[in-house]
Amino acid sequence: MEESVQVGPWAAEAFVDYEKLLKVFGAKPLTDSEVHKLERLAGESHLMLRRRVFYSHRDLDMFLNMYEAGYRCALYTGRGPSGSTHLGHILPWVFTKWLQDRLGLELFFQMTDDEKFLHEERLDLPESNSFAYENSLDLIALEFEPRKTHIIIDTEDIGYLYPVAVKVAKKITYSTQKATFGFTDSTNVGLVFYPVLQIAVSYLPTELYGEETYVLIPAGIDQDPYWRIARDIAQSLGYPKPSQIHNKLLPGLGPEGKMSSSKPETAVYTTDPPEIGAQKVMRAFTGGQPTVELQRKLGGNPDRCSVFKMYEMLFEEDDSKLSERYWNCRTGSLLCGDCKAELASRVQKFLREFQERRDRGRDKLHQYLIRSKFSEPKLKHR
Amino acid sequence: MEESVQVGPWAAEAFVDYEKLLKVFGAKPLTDSEVHKLERLAGESHLMLRRRVFYSHRDLDMFLNMYEAGYRCALYTGRGPSGSTHLGHILPWVFTKWLQDRLGLELFFQMTDDEKFLHEERLDLPESNSFAYENSLDLIALEFEPRKTHIIIDTEDIGYLYPVAVKVAKKITYSTQKATFGFTDSTNVGLVFYPVLQIAVSYLPTELYGEETYVLIPAGIDQDPYWRIARDIAQSLGYPKPSQIHNKLLPGLGPEGKMSSSKPETAVYTTDPPEIGAQKVMRAFTGGQPTVELQRKLGGNPDRCSVFKMYEMLFEEDDSKLSERYWNCRTGSLLCGDCKAELASRVQKFLREFQERRDRGRDKLHQYLIRSKFSEPKLKHR
Repeated sequence: MEESVQVGPWAAEAFVDYEKLLKVFGAKPLTDSEVHKLERLAGESHLMLRRRVFYSHRDLDMFLNMYEAGYRCALYTGRGPSGSTHLGHILPWVFTKWLQDRLGLELFFQMTDDEKFLHEERLDLPESNSFAYENSLDLIALEFEPRKTHIIIDTEDIGYLYPVAVKVAKKITYSTQKATFGFTDSTNVGLVFYPVLQIAVSYLPTELYGEETYVLIPAGIDQDPYWRIARDIAQSLGYPKPSQIHNKLLPGLGPEGKMSSSKPETAVYTTDPPEIGAQKVMRAFTGGQPTVELQRKLGGNPDRCSVFKMYEMLFEEDDSKLSERYWNCRTGSLLCGDCKAELASRVQKFLREFQERRDRGRDKLHQYLIRSKFSEPKLKHR
Repeated sequence: MEESVQVGPWAAEAFVDYEKLLKVFGAKPLTDSEVHKLERLAGESHLMLRRRVFYSHRDLDMFLNMYEAGYRCALYTGRGPSGSTHLGHILPWVFTKWLQDRLGLELFFQMTDDEKFLHEERLDLPESNSFAYENSLDLIALEFEPRKTHIIIDTEDIGYLYPVAVKVAKKITYSTQKATFGFTDSTNVGLVFYPVLQIAVSYLPTELYGEETYVLIPAGIDQDPYWRIARDIAQSLGYPKPSQIHNKLLPGLGPEGKMSSSKPETAVYTTDPPEIGAQKVMRAFTGGQPTVELQRKLGGNPDRCSVFKMYEMLFEEDDSKLSERYWNCRTGSLLCGDCKAELASRVQKFLREFQERRDRGRDKLHQYLIRSKFSEPKLKHR
């Protein structure tokens, strides 16, 4: 398996220059050393690790050391609930679920209905709030463990966050926020404050458990600026620095760009009727040639193919089968129509099963809410 | 009584140029017309009205009209709990209590433990929070009606405020906050956000009662900038504009300045042992002459006397007795020692009785907390 990481097709970067991103954000690339250690502690490998779907990190090594040494640890990730969930959103959640299961960790999941309301003119607060509940069903459909999964809905669970947030806020000047997030004088003051809440959750487990808790945050690298601040001020507030592990973004089914709600025809939503999801795949932009003849002669380019990326990042667990698909495409023996048809059938099956679990999830939703399990943190003299 | 407002000694302004303040803030002076109407609705006069301790307002006339027309109304004021309460703090509360009693209004009282923590380097959060509870005892000692008095402690009751606050925050740019409150790039982002919470409380009654509620805010004019924003954006959020009535500040017992915790020897705290309170009065700076002989000959200046102001603003209800004291001072027949001794004895008696009620208040405190009476407001589609 390890060899495939080094030489396999999925090592080639498509669509986004992740090397450049790494440099811009100053994060560390995920090396074999961290991957091996995580796999050893987890007792198995994961496709998103060995194919470097998760490709960079900050202090993952420290987190794994603390975990191994028996310190209390937790996971933290979240979602800005401004619409329906698509496969690009659930990609890191699939991995987070694996971490939860394999490392036995509790997960704090923040639904930032405040942020989305503050950011998007069109959204009213009840809308972003109701998306928070809708999106929670997707976590349930992924079979996160309810006793170990704690959903925080910002506008309703602010009581958990605010006592930590004011301590955070006292450490952060407007100047820092402006430089980090590009705020201007015309930014609304809700957005100016909001990062404090996202940072606060990284310290919340320590408050709730009443002991130093090391937090690992699986998330896109675009969220890195929040945790950079969180790491900078952690020590002065008496909290452990949070660690991060960054995933690549699932490409959309169009010619370029990540899967995004701004292009719904190129995004497969978890609530798409399964046959619609399959249709979207059949209409996907591929790395294939304009004609069958040319494809047979020249072969396709899986490195620039949204369909191949879906196999690589989510739908093909078997490395040798993925490799076979890669070379069959490259050599022209696999045609796009057949390749899409197989993915469409996998996507259709996935959506059907996912949606059954999602529908059954409504009755269990309350078990996932942080407010059904924890008391709000009390103010203690330091 | 009315005549005394026009010609009485207490019409003379001491220590602070309130006319100038009115111009700076652009508020309206309280006229006989509003005072008469309020006294008529209240069924009696109040010394702080007829002596213009409350001296300016915004839209008090509208508030009184809506009250008279039977619309739901409420009172709102608060305190930044950074230390013990002194007589300067309770002055507007005494009037607020009168408004509650005479107009039958519920009061929302905000304890801004977050603001004080964010503002003062020396304070930690548990400290400002515990001052919020300590200061609440002073409200109880003033005999506010528990069923009609709802104390909001920001860090703990943020769940009541935040759903309203994010709607407020979306309407306010950083530019507005900067211009209104003089924030700079080095201001912490907690302080940048905080005004939103103080504004939010002015709309909270409408949310909690589920009907348009007209809010009157008795407070110092220094708080006016908050409500100016609150009034500017109220309509766009579907809330009635809050009205204000501004009080003058009780002078400290020193040669100048308001009663302030920065000069504790010139401030009478509600928790001062009664004999200490009396001692502070006996050591007060007065408008008297350097010697008894000169005082007999030239008379004193009650308009520049912290002791006379205490009588005028709090401790002498009887207008004719106050007038007599004024002229006896002016003509030199009343000596400072005697004048102070009488105030000292009133202050001592006040503190003794106040503290008995304050001590008994601890058991009743929970009855005053908003969380013991209201559910957090729910997010509704507009």
